[in-house]
Amino acid sequence: MSTRELSPTPRSTIQRGKDRAATDRAALIAVLDAGLICHLGFVTPDGAPVVIPTGYGYEGSTLYLHGSTGAASLRAGAGGEVCVNVTLLDGVIYSRSVFHHSVNYRSATVHGRATRVTDPDAKLHALHVITEHLAPGSWDHARGPNAQEFAKTAVLALDLTEAAVKIRTGGPGEDPDDLTPDRVGSVWAGVVPLVRGWGTPEPCELLPADVAAPDYVTRREPQDGPQ
Amino acid sequence: MSTRELSPTPRSTIQRGKDRAATDRAALIAVLDAGLICHLGFVTPDGAPVVIPTGYGYEGSTLYLHGSTGAASLRAGAGGEVCVNVTLLDGVIYSRSVFHHSVNYRSATVHGRATRVTDPDAKLHALHVITEHLAPGSWDHARGPNAQEFAKTAVLALDLTEAAVKIRTGGPGEDPDDLTPDRVGSVWAGVVPLVRGWGTPEPCELLPADVAAPDYVTRREPQDGPQ
Repeated sequence: MSTRELSPTPRSTIQRGKDRAATDRAALIAVLDAGLICHLGFVTPDGAPVVIPTGYGYEGSTLYLHGSTGAASLRAGAGGEVCVNVTLLDGVIYSRSVFHHSVNYRSATVHGRATRVTDPDAKLHALHVITEHLAPGSWDHARGPNAQEFAKTAVLALDLTEAAVKIRTGGPGEDPDDLTPDRVGSVWAGVVPLVRGWGTPEPCELLPADVAAPDYVTRREPQDGPQ
Repeated sequence: MSTRELSPTPRSTIQRGKDRAATDRAALIAVLDAGLICHLGFVTPDGAPVVIPTGYGYEGSTLYLHGSTGAASLRAGAGGEVCVNVTLLDGVIYSRSVFHHSVNYRSATVHGRATRVTDPDAKLHALHVITEHLAPGSWDHARGPNAQEFAKTAVLALDLTEAAVKIRTGGPGEDPDDLTPDRVGSVWAGVVPLVRGWGTPEPCELLPADVAAPDYVTRREPQDGPQ
């Protein structure tokens, strides 16, 4: 995907906190790369919103989601409007006023109409893409889906065109009245970062002792972990 | 809140992966305590779903959300159906088949009709609750909201009654055919945990050098960090 600008529609144009809006494809891709799961929103037939956490993958300008063919999300999402959000939380902002407390984060939101991927080759490819995002390298080693597993799995595709990215970094914002010499030191202000990482792999207890964890497990990127 | 069972309606009754459903209040509270942000889903006037990450707090059986009075989420959420999800991701499951790849997680979903909190005392209390969740202890030290800030902030309340909790822990699930003596060691299987923590506080550059980070900043719980 190029680094050209996103092409947001009115609903994907950030209205609040415009100074935090990023408008290029590279920012979107960076968030999708850093995240591990997304939150999928859809509307039930009776008009209520539902939000579920789920895995994803992307390739080019297409986001892929998958789930059981029996899942409400897949039934409602296929052909319907969905909203997908991926957020990484990077820290808590302590300000001199509670009004300016905040968080540092990177957040991508994609709106659109999801379509069911039904062509077998395209669907298998999408599952490969999703698996590479969750567990990179494992597709070449783990057993692929058999006919029954393949039939049980539904895949949705969502175009990444209608997307918005919002990022906050840095220290606290403050009301100027709280930065006067007599008040600037009245209370501690700053950032408490959130740090993430991959822990030591825990082998399945059934695994023979001579099967060592491969590089794709022990050295997965990013080394600082996803959201 | 007691540890009595949740009282789910059909839409909050977990249909997929029932073995991962937790049905008591204590499980719900544990997820809300461990999380730092939620994902709020609502439906726009033209019927499309929107998902946004946002802070929250809870007290008793009420979840509180806040935002700018001008935010679409607050306008659409007040009086309308919303869905709130809090998810903590605990690890990636590598199985012997890609179909059984998964994640360990703790996830709480709350459905309901959000109401706007307008009584000034109740609204200030809700903001206190939300602030305590984001930055515990800071309410007693940072400046409280002035009239203008208070007017700009909207608060929503959502009852925690209609909720579902789903938790996955442990190692990989497998197809029995992949656990035969000749295949059980065919590929590495296990869990790669995700670890989180609070980093070293970074003071605001304007803060006088003699203002040390207080205990409520340096020793915040949980020490292993939220989601």
